Amino acid sequence: MTTLKEDLAREAARVEFWLAGCLDGRGIPPRLREAMDYSLRAGGKRLRPVLCLAFAGLCGGDEEAAMPCAGAFELIHTYSLIHDDLPAMDDDDLRRGKPSNHKVFGEATAILAGDGLLTEAFACMAEAAPAIPAGRVVEAMRLLAVAAGAGGMVGGQDLDMAYTGAPDVTLEKLAAMHAMKTGALIRAACECGAVLAGADDDRRARARDFGIHVGAAFQIVDDVLDVVGDEKEIGKPVGSDQEMGKHTYPSLVGLDESRRMAGERIAMALDRLSVFEGPRADFLRNLARYILERAQ
Amino acid sequence: MTTLKEDLAREAARVEFWLAGCLDGRGIPPRLREAMDYSLRAGGKRLRPVLCLAFAGLCGGDEEAAMPCAGAFELIHTYSLIHDDLPAMDDDDLRRGKPSNHKVFGEATAILAGDGLLTEAFACMAEAAPAIPAGRVVEAMRLLAVAAGAGGMVGGQDLDMAYTGAPDVTLEKLAAMHAMKTGALIRAACECGAVLAGADDDRRARARDFGIHVGAAFQIVDDVLDVVGDEKEIGKPVGSDQEMGKHTYPSLVGLDESRRMAGERIAMALDRLSVFEGPRADFLRNLARYILERAQ
Repeated sequence: MTTLKEDLAREAARVEFWLAGCLDGRGIPPRLREAMDYSLRAGGKRLRPVLCLAFAGLCGGDEEAAMPCAGAFELIHTYSLIHDDLPAMDDDDLRRGKPSNHKVFGEATAILAGDGLLTEAFACMAEAAPAIPAGRVVEAMRLLAVAAGAGGMVGGQDLDMAYTGAPDVTLEKLAAMHAMKTGALIRAACECGAVLAGADDDRRARARDFGIHVGAAFQIVDDVLDVVGDEKEIGKPVGSDQEMGKHTYPSLVGLDESRRMAGERIAMALDRLSVFEGPRADFLRNLARYILERAQ
Repeated sequence: MTTLKEDLAREAARVEFWLAGCLDGRGIPPRLREAMDYSLRAGGKRLRPVLCLAFAGLCGGDEEAAMPCAGAFELIHTYSLIHDDLPAMDDDDLRRGKPSNHKVFGEATAILAGDGLLTEAFACMAEAAPAIPAGRVVEAMRLLAVAAGAGGMVGGQDLDMAYTGAPDVTLEKLAAMHAMKTGALIRAACECGAVLAGADDDRRARARDFGIHVGAAFQIVDDVLDVVGDEKEIGKPVGSDQEMGKHTYPSLVGLDESRRMAGERIAMALDRLSVFEGPRADFLRNLARYILERAQ
């Protein structure tokens, strides 16, 4: 029996291996490549690719063949962090304890590194065909683009900035914004795994719902950790949300109610997994529970 | 007999019609949508989609079915203009005679509008399946991503900034940079048209080569017009390249040699079209000649 931490480390290492080579041979100018690698190699749990691979395996697909699609989610996630940190956006000097991309490479290169990672994500994903049937790859690319686009992650960042410091932000608005900003990509990672494996409509819907609930819980826990977390673990100063005038779950409903809401979401996620069995199902159940435990 | 100007206006109008509706129903927050529309509706010749459609038709494909893929090239081109104009990049206050995106909506929204257009391009393109076989759509998406990515357009912008004001920029370096910055997308638009139509390898290579030569000529002519052009027609002050310290074809080899090089490229482009007949072939030949005429 391996522990969840060992499982997570092994899964992340698989993704790291792919990430280390995914930009090779693409003719990227050296300094731009350096800036892209800087953020891509900054570590992290690689949650989105890990979810995508796990759902591909859970639904009987070839996980190795799905890797370029799974990895594309990390390229997109990384680009979003680079652009979010820009002076015109959240103006963050630090990311995971290191200087943010634009502090090292300058704003222009940071913008281009983000643009490059975003675009290369689709190049990588397209290369999953024909090992995976083209119809599935197109559908996965559509899901990624919709989730990452102006009605998803990019739109969520727009709303996040509009809501920061605004007086009339309700819990409903906050939840809808987070469903776009962080939820959409997590949801799409799970659903893409199922799509790439050729899952039927029921399994695909279960993967999608699992992603919706886990994504929501993940954000609530993130907000809770910004209040009660350990600075080293969360990679940014405790209380930085409040300092920036950001509305959070704890600021709107308190810590206890936030934890209860996260628990409810994880229970719903687990419920949607109930028809699945085997090691990939166990891994996903443990992962869902672990997200909740971090907030205790 | 219609004139080329009438043909170009009719083709651009087809693209405009598609562009006007392509972002509807995508759940984009209103202000972000406004910023995306602002740049998308700023006009222009819609050269890239027009080339893509013409090659789709030339190779016997369904042009209407190819429209979302053709239009995606304009979304990508538009995003690149928004990001290029940012203060950290070329810092342009005007674009096609109107205030640039960030002057109207602020830097943060301009960055996000660009990110949104870039991402939605792939969503639109994916939606061309199944009207067009998924294998062709995946290949077209791969071509677009590679052309627009860090080894293509984004990398070209990175090199353009590095070369601006630098002392050792040769004609070879300049040509390689432009092949990435402006050439790659024009080349991919032509090749995608052929791919979407299911063209054989020879026709696909001819479409690609036509795009390479026309793209190179287009850039040389653009540089020439920056010296001798009419401010109203080119939409920016004459001499702005020189003012910014940009190396250009005229600054490296003079106006006459620049014109000769453009002519040589157009001759090569026409040569690659020699096996094609019919109205689409005539349109492309006229278009290629027209690009050259602008520099006289």
